Amino acid sequence: MATTFAHRMKEVRASDIRELLKITERPDVISMGGGLPAPELFPVDELVALTRDVLEQDGARALQYASTEGNADLRARIAALMQARQGIEITPAEILVTNGSQQGLDLTGKVFLDPGDVVLCESPTYVGAISALRVFEPRFVEVETDDEGMLPGDLERKLIAEARVKFIYVIPDFQNPSGRCWSLERRRRLLDLAARHGVVVVEDAPYAELRYSGEPVPSLKSMDAGGLVVYLGTFSKTFCPGLRIGWLAARREIHEKCVLVKQGADLHTSELSQRLIARFLARYDFAGRVEALRAVYRGRRDAMLRAIEREMPAGVRATRPEGGLFLWIELPPDVSARDVLPRALARNVAFVPGGSFYPNGGHENTLRLNFSNQTEERIGEGVGRLASALREVMAEAHGKAAADAPDVPLSRRAAS
Amino acid sequence: MATTFAHRMKEVRASDIRELLKITERPDVISMGGGLPAPELFPVDELVALTRDVLEQDGARALQYASTEGNADLRARIAALMQARQGIEITPAEILVTNGSQQGLDLTGKVFLDPGDVVLCESPTYVGAISALRVFEPRFVEVETDDEGMLPGDLERKLIAEARVKFIYVIPDFQNPSGRCWSLERRRRLLDLAARHGVVVVEDAPYAELRYSGEPVPSLKSMDAGGLVVYLGTFSKTFCPGLRIGWLAARREIHEKCVLVKQGADLHTSELSQRLIARFLARYDFAGRVEALRAVYRGRRDAMLRAIEREMPAGVRATRPEGGLFLWIELPPDVSARDVLPRALARNVAFVPGGSFYPNGGHENTLRLNFSNQTEERIGEGVGRLASALREVMAEAHGKAAADAPDVPLSRRAAS
Repeated sequence: MATTFAHRMKEVRASDIRELLKITERPDVISMGGGLPAPELFPVDELVALTRDVLEQDGARALQYASTEGNADLRARIAALMQARQGIEITPAEILVTNGSQQGLDLTGKVFLDPGDVVLCESPTYVGAISALRVFEPRFVEVETDDEGMLPGDLERKLIAEARVKFIYVIPDFQNPSGRCWSLERRRRLLDLAARHGVVVVEDAPYAELRYSGEPVPSLKSMDAGGLVVYLGTFSKTFCPGLRIGWLAARREIHEKCVLVKQGADLHTSELSQRLIARFLARYDFAGRVEALRAVYRGRRDAMLRAIEREMPAGVRATRPEGGLFLWIELPPDVSARDVLPRALARNVAFVPGGSFYPNGGHENTLRLNFSNQTEERIGEGVGRLASALREVMAEAHGKAAADAPDVPLSRRAAS
Repeated sequence: MATTFAHRMKEVRASDIRELLKITERPDVISMGGGLPAPELFPVDELVALTRDVLEQDGARALQYASTEGNADLRARIAALMQARQGIEITPAEILVTNGSQQGLDLTGKVFLDPGDVVLCESPTYVGAISALRVFEPRFVEVETDDEGMLPGDLERKLIAEARVKFIYVIPDFQNPSGRCWSLERRRRLLDLAARHGVVVVEDAPYAELRYSGEPVPSLKSMDAGGLVVYLGTFSKTFCPGLRIGWLAARREIHEKCVLVKQGADLHTSELSQRLIARFLARYDFAGRVEALRAVYRGRRDAMLRAIEREMPAGVRATRPEGGLFLWIELPPDVSARDVLPRALARNVAFVPGGSFYPNGGHENTLRLNFSNQTEERIGEGVGRLASALREVMAEAHGKAAADAPDVPLSRRAAS
């Protein structure tokens, strides 16, 4: 007997990234696939001490059912952190603690999206946002994007053309997958247009703390006079992902709805995990920890950029991110990253084909590389192996193309 | 500017229980409202030791991103536990670890329900299931229920009359809110009817381990030859709620869909929490722990039943549960528990009005009492205060009723 699932399940597919993560657990594989932080930087000893303190001081409450909104102490500390580090004016009452910022996407989708509603997003955009939101059956309309962010002209055109836009989803700082950081001018234009059209902006900011070079640019939420921005933050990158602690910050009307749907979805986030992070923020040096992370990741980014410069064949373009965990590669238009993947895996190196990051498909000549989860040495080795797989595929494509097109060499650009 | 939320938000309201929990955090309030386990029984010292071991042994993996399905060791131990303690044949591959069993309800709703689909449920049913599922806009059709479970005749009638039934949601063991336990005969009839109509059964089993008297009755999942049953389990009652660890067990086709939607919803459940519970199951005596819980809760249930017998006015009926955390009260038909609540709160005692447990409303003359979260002495005191509030409201109702109806005393039944 066949089971009848909901209509939304027709759209739900396994993510390339999650499936890849399983393959790449073998230690001989150099994975530039997932978005894993460096585990050698996790605060393991601190957590042993913090757990003992939290449990000995008030174990009964740390292990009991708790409020949906989140632990009051942690919410106050998050609000203070947003103020101190990003200049965002926010009250603890506007913070909702979530199971990683991924849950913020699920709650936002649930609260705003009816089938057929439109989500405007960068092109490409975060694959996990596509899978979080897709179950609510929106149409994703991709806005043209360059190194400074969405093109305001294209954004405005689509805001006018699409009657059912519910929100604009963006990752302004060191975007996943492209590594790009929006300019201040583009951020202002986005907020102007959103305000003019009365559309909410979802600002996904998992990498906001991870800048390695260049000057900080204010977050959208810090310039959000009208309360249009729903901000999603996380401790997965600055602390560790395994505790699953993120947050959503939004004005009261939106916050309340998100609390109600979180209540139905899982009652509340682990109270023990919340108290561990609140205690960490109280006792340890968050700024110092972030500085240490930046130093390591800066070195890894540079190692990857050097290796790309050194190893990659002509016709391959890479972004030059000022922060975050990722770098984005464009191959010649006739080369599919999905064809490269098996040859890369055969060489024990993994990446994520870029097509997954376009909700409406296409762009198969792109791929995403992660630089946070491997040592500089292994990054060099991994990029070398990937370049070798690429050369093999490109030689074949070139052989085929040579039969029916003139041989024009593609210009080489290691940075865009 | 008004924000336009999704259509589903029209149905989403704050739960009485969660709002009550906030009021009742004052230590002078005797709360019989929430469903809180006894915190003095939480394994606090064990968790300090377990955390140290888990982090020292493999902190890097315990704190890293992990698989959506859940920790492999924990899934194997859950499957073994279901086999050993409930005779359920299940493989680890059919287990999905969730953020409490509440998340199992959200995933099940997402995977199965289109707007207008029908959920058949007990009458009354768990208020948290109503709020988890309501966002998917089903119609709840309540099936008539007595002390042995759903009435098979009414269930069959509704299976025939309703073309769009997606699943039947039940809590066969010590139901929330009624405390009732289904008879074996009724369980068999339910499975027969579900199989005949090709309808999935969601068996929510948070209290399955908490039997204080009478003989165990096999779970639906243990008799599920056709793979129709989605089983929801949790460690919130046997271990502690604050870690938010539950699980969903279902045949592969359903399991895979639930994994996909969980991936979008929050990537995965806290890996540290999962490893803590897996390690607990490996090292400590789960059966012994459950026995200790049962002994305490048995005493509290008995104390509540004695107090009801002693204190409650005539016309008040109570169930006599053989397990779980709750007992169910029916007041005379003309007395609303919502009218009793403010007078109870004025006496520093709290409960949950029963109307919340009926998805289609009505039954305001009912209420739910929790007996797990207070000492026997405070339970006696709390029931006394509640009885005093009740007598006050009933005297007024009686005064009004006496004006237009003959004074027929309601029969007293302290147990049903």
